[in-house]
Amino acid sequence: MTMTNNDNVLEPPINFSMVDEGVFRSGFPQLSNFPFLQSLQLRSIIYLCPEPYPEESLEFLRSQGIRLFQFGIEGKKERSTSPLIPAETISEALKVLVEIENHPVLIHCKRGKHRTGCLVGCLRKFQNWCLSSALEEYQRFAGEKSRGTDLRFIETFDVLGLRGMPSRHCPPLLLSLCFRKEAFVVQTRVANP
Amino acid sequence: MTMTNNDNVLEPPINFSMVDEGVFRSGFPQLSNFPFLQSLQLRSIIYLCPEPYPEESLEFLRSQGIRLFQFGIEGKKERSTSPLIPAETISEALKVLVEIENHPVLIHCKRGKHRTGCLVGCLRKFQNWCLSSALEEYQRFAGEKSRGTDLRFIETFDVLGLRGMPSRHCPPLLLSLCFRKEAFVVQTRVANP
Repeated sequence: MTMTNNDNVLEPPINFSMVDEGVFRSGFPQLSNFPFLQSLQLRSIIYLCPEPYPEESLEFLRSQGIRLFQFGIEGKKERSTSPLIPAETISEALKVLVEIENHPVLIHCKRGKHRTGCLVGCLRKFQNWCLSSALEEYQRFAGEKSRGTDLRFIETFDVLGLRGMPSRHCPPLLLSLCFRKEAFVVQTRVANP
Repeated sequence: MTMTNNDNVLEPPINFSMVDEGVFRSGFPQLSNFPFLQSLQLRSIIYLCPEPYPEESLEFLRSQGIRLFQFGIEGKKERSTSPLIPAETISEALKVLVEIENHPVLIHCKRGKHRTGCLVGCLRKFQNWCLSSALEEYQRFAGEKSRGTDLRFIETFDVLGLRGMPSRHCPPLLLSLCFRKEAFVVQTRVANP
């Protein structure tokens, strides 16, 4: 078996993107995506679906020494309007996500739109992004499947509880966004009273 | 003057995203986005519009020691069907983009959709991404403004000419994508004759 459809190209998983230094997002990776995933030298994967991970995928993770963190969040039925994203589960996933020892890390669910979009949206709040930018990013990946319940989930999610974690748990870039921003604001205040 | 709308949040430019290690993309950065841009510690900006850079933006670049590379590509008129993206200009921009000494670098045009999307699409081909993934990424940022002429431009753009450049000009991750992929293919061939 060869793990590439075409030796000349790399095939990222559907809806793949780099979120931040050492953090990636995508839909469910297929066999044909493994060579690309290997190029990312992942240390862990955050999987947001309740379904068991396929054996061929587990085999790939074992061969690469990639640790799997599974947080089983049920997919929302098309017609349902009730928010199905559990805040406690997202908080637990976020703690694993900002643990630098788990990086490089890939976050994925099935399509990389709703569950993944909610977790990344909450990460952006943790990074002090303004809400409109976090929601714009969610919508870029969800497209016409964008859900008001997810947007409200991101808006109302409380990240303050995560701020207390030891800094070694937080990647340089994530932290720097907060620190440099504060330094900059002070600086500009002094420069422009 | 304070450079933030709200000292508690960072405001990324519209359509902002991380493309790869040390490479970012967005729409035109506004004054309110400067604190966020500062957090990226940019070394350079690749600006893809012919219009002169605003004085307040130039002032920010000078204060941060950020180098501006301008490649004036005309915006396409809504009705026009002729492809207006000049391949030679994109080639020149791509050479600046893959020059690691210019990283971290931000690519931007006006809305971060068409001109920026074409340059990033060509970068993905340079990285050996399969075409469908490069086009999917273009469409994610262009949304309903996606243009067939841009998709065909990315498809037909020739990156082979850039492959000859000295490796010091090519960021580790960009190169590693090619190298590791080849190593992986050889490895799997041996393992699975």
